[in-house]
Amino acid sequence: MTMGWHTVMEFSPSLIGCIISNRNRSFEMIRNSKECVINVPTRDMARKVVGIGNCSGSEVDKFKRFKLTAIPASKVHAPLIQECYANFECKIFDTELVDRYNFFVFEVVKAHVAVSPKYPQTLHYRGDGVFMLSGRSIKLPSEV
Amino acid sequence: MTMGWHTVMEFSPSLIGCIISNRNRSFEMIRNSKECVINVPTRDMARKVVGIGNCSGSEVDKFKRFKLTAIPASKVHAPLIQECYANFECKIFDTELVDRYNFFVFEVVKAHVAVSPKYPQTLHYRGDGVFMLSGRSIKLPSEV
Repeated sequence: MTMGWHTVMEFSPSLIGCIISNRNRSFEMIRNSKECVINVPTRDMARKVVGIGNCSGSEVDKFKRFKLTAIPASKVHAPLIQECYANFECKIFDTELVDRYNFFVFEVVKAHVAVSPKYPQTLHYRGDGVFMLSGRSIKLPSEV
Repeated sequence: MTMGWHTVMEFSPSLIGCIISNRNRSFEMIRNSKECVINVPTRDMARKVVGIGNCSGSEVDKFKRFKLTAIPASKVHAPLIQECYANFECKIFDTELVDRYNFFVFEVVKAHVAVSPKYPQTLHYRGDGVFMLSGRSIKLPSEV
């Protein structure tokens, strides 16, 4: 599935909070297996990202339809998507807010990231079919 | 305070989840008042954003030091920052995960946003003093 609402929650343990709607097939899959992989796509994959968000895994094999390569993860059973810039192997850490908000807290148990580019052009969903592309990065000194 | 970890959680009611460390003065202020304003700064305010994150309101008047203009909100007692692109007046909606993760769920009870530009250059914290600037926006059709 395509996921757009998420936040880092802690450095150590490495926690990520995500909204995963219970209308997605992923919702029950993750609740049952207690694990998942979060894959970070880049601009060149934008059309696939939209396509993946507009069909259901209960009807189509998304890896096949979108020509994605599944490679084994090392700490969870779900596969990584090879074409993505980064992959986070996750285990459920807290389900307290799942019933109320479909909000899952995951612990990243293993992270994979491409060695270059340092800052890839990532996609950030604004809603209504609009994505913000990441722009350049700036470093700012911490002194006031 | 400067805040970097947050996510939309729901359209209606309009919910935003945020990590607000209990080492910030804002933590107790928000817990007591049960409200706050989230202000969205733009690139021209980058140095102020860093400065605000590196001092405490228990020692300095940040509005004064950073030459910010406080204007009254309409539904909460905390002020808006006039220089920011958008301001969200918020009330605490759920504190279930505050003790465990410093994670607050807020309801946006009133939103203010500048009429132009449509997509301002916003700042997105990468960590270690590095910010990603928002790049251009692209619209993608939803059909596969």
